[in-house]
Amino acid sequence: MNVAIIGGTGYGAVELLRFLYNHPHVTVSKIISHSNSGTPFSEVYPHLVNLIDTEMESLDISTLAEEVDLVFFATPSNVSKNYIPELIDKGIKCIDLSGDFRLKDGEQYRNYYGEKMAPEKYIEKAVYGLSEVNKKAIENALLIANPGCYPTATTLGLIPVLSHNLADYQNIVIDAKTGTTGAGRSLSQGFHFSEMQENFKAYKLGIHKHIPEIEQVLSDTANEDIQVTFTPHVVPMTRGIMSTIYVNLKERQSTKQLLDLYKEFYKDKPFVRVREEGIIPQTKEVYGSNFCDIGLYADERTGKLIIVSVIDNLVKGASGQAIQNMNIMNGWDEATGINQLPIYP
Amino acid sequence: MNVAIIGGTGYGAVELLRFLYNHPHVTVSKIISHSNSGTPFSEVYPHLVNLIDTEMESLDISTLAEEVDLVFFATPSNVSKNYIPELIDKGIKCIDLSGDFRLKDGEQYRNYYGEKMAPEKYIEKAVYGLSEVNKKAIENALLIANPGCYPTATTLGLIPVLSHNLADYQNIVIDAKTGTTGAGRSLSQGFHFSEMQENFKAYKLGIHKHIPEIEQVLSDTANEDIQVTFTPHVVPMTRGIMSTIYVNLKERQSTKQLLDLYKEFYKDKPFVRVREEGIIPQTKEVYGSNFCDIGLYADERTGKLIIVSVIDNLVKGASGQAIQNMNIMNGWDEATGINQLPIYP
Amino acid sequence: MNVAIIGGTGYGAVELLRFLYNHPHVTVSKIISHSNSGTPFSEVYPHLVNLIDTEMESLDISTLAEEVDLVFFATPSNVSKNYIPELIDKGIKCIDLSGDFRLKDGEQYRNYYGEKMAPEKYIEKAVYGLSEVNKKAIENALLIANPGCYPTATTLGLIPVLSHNLADYQNIVIDAKTGTTGAGRSLSQGFHFSEMQENFKAYKLGIHKHIPEIEQVLSDTANEDIQVTFTPHVVPMTRGIMSTIYVNLKERQSTKQLLDLYKEFYKDKPFVRVREEGIIPQTKEVYGSNFCDIGLYADERTGKLIIVSVIDNLVKGASGQAIQNMNIMNGWDEATGINQLPIYP
Amino acid sequence: MNVAIIGGTGYGAVELLRFLYNHPHVTVSKIISHSNSGTPFSEVYPHLVNLIDTEMESLDISTLAEEVDLVFFATPSNVSKNYIPELIDKGIKCIDLSGDFRLKDGEQYRNYYGEKMAPEKYIEKAVYGLSEVNKKAIENALLIANPGCYPTATTLGLIPVLSHNLADYQNIVIDAKTGTTGAGRSLSQGFHFSEMQENFKAYKLGIHKHIPEIEQVLSDTANEDIQVTFTPHVVPMTRGIMSTIYVNLKERQSTKQLLDLYKEFYKDKPFVRVREEGIIPQTKEVYGSNFCDIGLYADERTGKLIIVSVIDNLVKGASGQAIQNMNIMNGWDEATGINQLPIYP
Repeated sequence: MNVAIIGGTGYGAVELLRFLYNHPHVTVSKIISHSNSGTPFSEVYPHLVNLIDTEMESLDISTLAEEVDLVFFATPSNVSKNYIPELIDKGIKCIDLSGDFRLKDGEQYRNYYGEKMAPEKYIEKAVYGLSEVNKKAIENALLIANPGCYPTATTLGLIPVLSHNLADYQNIVIDAKTGTTGAGRSLSQGFHFSEMQENFKAYKLGIHKHIPEIEQVLSDTANEDIQVTFTPHVVPMTRGIMSTIYVNLKERQSTKQLLDLYKEFYKDKPFVRVREEGIIPQTKEVYGSNFCDIGLYADERTGKLIIVSVIDNLVKGASGQAIQNMNIMNGWDEATGINQLPIYP
Repeated sequence: MNVAIIGGTGYGAVELLRFLYNHPHVTVSKIISHSNSGTPFSEVYPHLVNLIDTEMESLDISTLAEEVDLVFFATPSNVSKNYIPELIDKGIKCIDLSGDFRLKDGEQYRNYYGEKMAPEKYIEKAVYGLSEVNKKAIENALLIANPGCYPTATTLGLIPVLSHNLADYQNIVIDAKTGTTGAGRSLSQGFHFSEMQENFKAYKLGIHKHIPEIEQVLSDTANEDIQVTFTPHVVPMTRGIMSTIYVNLKERQSTKQLLDLYKEFYKDKPFVRVREEGIIPQTKEVYGSNFCDIGLYADERTGKLIIVSVIDNLVKGASGQAIQNMNIMNGWDEATGINQLPIYP
Repeated sequence: MNVAIIGGTGYGAVELLRFLYNHPHVTVSKIISHSNSGTPFSEVYPHLVNLIDTEMESLDISTLAEEVDLVFFATPSNVSKNYIPELIDKGIKCIDLSGDFRLKDGEQYRNYYGEKMAPEKYIEKAVYGLSEVNKKAIENALLIANPGCYPTATTLGLIPVLSHNLADYQNIVIDAKTGTTGAGRSLSQGFHFSEMQENFKAYKLGIHKHIPEIEQVLSDTANEDIQVTFTPHVVPMTRGIMSTIYVNLKERQSTKQLLDLYKEFYKDKPFVRVREEGIIPQTKEVYGSNFCDIGLYADERTGKLIIVSVIDNLVKGASGQAIQNMNIMNGWDEATGINQLPIYP
Repeated sequence: MNVAIIGGTGYGAVELLRFLYNHPHVTVSKIISHSNSGTPFSEVYPHLVNLIDTEMESLDISTLAEEVDLVFFATPSNVSKNYIPELIDKGIKCIDLSGDFRLKDGEQYRNYYGEKMAPEKYIEKAVYGLSEVNKKAIENALLIANPGCYPTATTLGLIPVLSHNLADYQNIVIDAKTGTTGAGRSLSQGFHFSEMQENFKAYKLGIHKHIPEIEQVLSDTANEDIQVTFTPHVVPMTRGIMSTIYVNLKERQSTKQLLDLYKEFYKDKPFVRVREEGIIPQTKEVYGSNFCDIGLYADERTGKLIIVSVIDNLVKGASGQAIQNMNIMNGWDEATGINQLPIYP
């Protein structure tokens, strides 16, 4: 099967290529980059010299539709919505790693993304690609809105307890931390090595665009409007997200009881590992892999459940989950091409 | 004035020496280390060769009491309580960087420190050395229980809003992050460079010994029993603490109003910098210095106030504040010897 | 094919497992660890929970010989020499990642390894597993002495120019730098995160045990005794080696001429990438992969050739090359199971 | 004494301010920045909020000359040469942290700096500010060409052995490594945190502009033309330089003999610390301080002397040495304001 990657020179694209290089059913036949058309990919990413020397091309939707069966969009916000409608009208499968098709509410989209949302008709076709939760819908989808990195870690951590109706919907606090690749490849003073090294910082308090995405997923789960307090931070490391999540339990539950419930919830899901009592997963334990590891601690003193959920933001939080969704859409084993072990240390 | 440092080879001691080296009123005449008696200090810490070659000594309380006027204890838990009573009985001022004299409740002490607390009589003499809050008491103290690193960042962040009775005492969540020096100099697999680099982790959920210390300070402030949810994490960097604190506001307040209140509260406190609206302090902005920087964000959607408080854990969180307290005890300007700028980048 | 790994809990073993997990022809049926017999592997390395939960065993050579076809030794120095003779006598293939069978000279071995070398008879059987250079001998070997990390980067960088007799054998300077995993998993103050972070250091000047190994390979290449000046350093990062090598050219050569010669030398070697003129490879460009990337600069002012050679010390410098050798020994494509792209960023 | 800093927003300036803040004889009355005129300094560097809120100004040489006694230029190449002549003609002392007045040879300047050198007459007035070596000349200077970071570490390491005529002038190899602040504050892909973290790289082989500077100092010392091979590298850390230097000894010398000679050479120099036999200094041991630490190893096998010299590139390699020179020019103790201990860990 031939696939194309659009948005070729971001970290999302390079991570797609890392996994697709050895994928048995897929060939990346086109890498599209507006700004680097004509340049060999390995000139931008020299670690791929001799391996991926493909010349990047500029985007031409009609020839694209003839030559490939599936397109990954690894583009910034407000790009894919201009191209995806035409592609899916032509029957080309699309997996969108950006946020353009994630939100269902046009006003929310405008507030957080600053532009008009894609037409309702296409939004309705988009399936939110949280693989473990929406597998059935993904199987039949033509368009996947691949989840954001923070929403993946956070909602996989919260859905089991919410879906069992064990948690109060008020006072959900999500204290999230990401490695620097979450900010992408564009240069900025705050990510200059000399100023990011030995630094830890919070950012975009109350205004991060993953807030409405998280709330939409949780509200759908709970059948009730849920609002969360969400604070993202940056850690001086390249990869990894940890969401530390605080919810009030409606009734006392032991850590053990809750872990059993989580294990049951994720029992046939190869990429979610619910850890044992007393063990809290660390970001390095999923480095470079598609795993989401979850640890729990029920604090009897305060009645709160603390959920710790970790992923590699570029893999389960972006490109790995995109490939997992591609596998599901095509009826392949969902782990095909992404069943690699975490790299450690 | 002659001072001694006990617990010579930990990071607390080496940081005391860094500031005291240029302190105009003080000479460090003795460095006590049980395990390194007879060894020049610079043999353990070669960065001080030619500068601090003092031979370390073993502890002899009676000669100590004759030769120095003030003793810093930079010892592990459950050490200083064995020596401080005798010293203060002899009129020697003591500043204890460990937790032995911080808690007032013997049962709490036993639960979190695993041993019997020091005798009530000495506990009563101990003044909790949160310099900005307890200055009056510190001026007349003979014994200072120097605050823990997390409690310093956290209580300086919370006291203004609590003392104005603007916050709900339920649902206080403290999500704290520290650099690795917080774990000290002792070796462990989790702090081996290869395994800590590119890693972010939570630890001691619900059982960290700074929990009762924070609750004691907050309860004293509010005149009511307060319980908090506190989760410490480790960041792959050496220095810095950030406490991200979530409290429910009783009534809607704007970020601006709250910042004004904080600025008023800390107006004559040179080491607390309340930052402007829209600015959240980063740990690197206080690196190597005695500052505590505080930023606020009142989240109108959820009614929560988010407080971000940062310190250098070894300075304001330990040795810097200890010297600040020594200055106050002796009637010197509180910034003497510690008015250095943060080192950046 | 069933294989065993001895020395189960070092970084060498965990990296072997990462690649062998998806190797199509091999099953790791035994993981041997003296100190952790009876413990599931994932208890020591939690990133492998649910993936490699195999219980480690203690070593029993005779049952081992019955159950597996090939054994990897990822043991410290002076261990494998006690077991390998018996195994190869029984026809079991052995790949030794330690240094026990690398040197041919017993006196050198004693000087640098502190013990008596393995019996001559077995030393003679050992093939030095520098895959690109000794492929023919490796194909027929029963015992592979897998090269050290520094020697791999260094000799792959030097052999082309030496074998063409273009360099002076005097004044070869090798200034080498490694990430911290080169020092292994054992704890020491110098690799404590707080003291290794923001630090760069040289160590073991003139006495590193890779010196005789490098000299042996170079002398064999040149048919003349070669002595080198070798200085290893540690970089505050986990993975990667760079050897910066200085040799005097006998006659003036342009960078371009030399690069052509290197490209010719390595033309059918998939894991050596000779870079273009003006490009010097960086360690991150081979991170997690089996590549050795080489850049050259002929300094016309001083007549020196500067060779920069980079590898991932745990992959091409250890486990990756070991698997490459296993593939060659068994007649499989040498890239089987290790043709993964570097992970970036 | 009033001083001005020109080039206000680079790392050189901010480090000057860190030390001058507590300097007893100096007030920084002007901070000049072309691009940030009108902006408070602490807006660009928030770690200095409440501490250095001075508004930056644009440059006006004539008012400057009236209001200050000494000017620090912390500007990029080819800037200070346009302003310094006028200032020193007016008797204003100048300390130039850039390279504009370091080289004596106009052709070399053009080759490496790409422009015409300052007029001969002013070049002749410039004293090369290697404080330990040129103290006498510095005392009477009006204009200091403050040494580059690599040249400081390198020449302090080489001068003793060269001045005693113990080394061969051929085959001097300098393998140098710097932290990222050496590349300054300007953004570039290579210093983006995500791509610099876990990376080690060489750069500018054979063409770095510190080459002629090093050769000029060494040739002056030896009274003979010396050419060196110099390779700079970048380490994933913010601060620190190590120069690992290889020279052929004319006759066999023991490490001990050479160390004695170095100690004698630097005996009254408070900022050079010659380390004991068997000890090689590490960059972290001088972090944040003005020290240059030197270790030696005479390799008997190859007849080479290996010199390891470390500094903090922003302190002894730039701003610290600039202040040391200011102190010497003004007859103050050379350690005034810069006698701070290294910060560790």
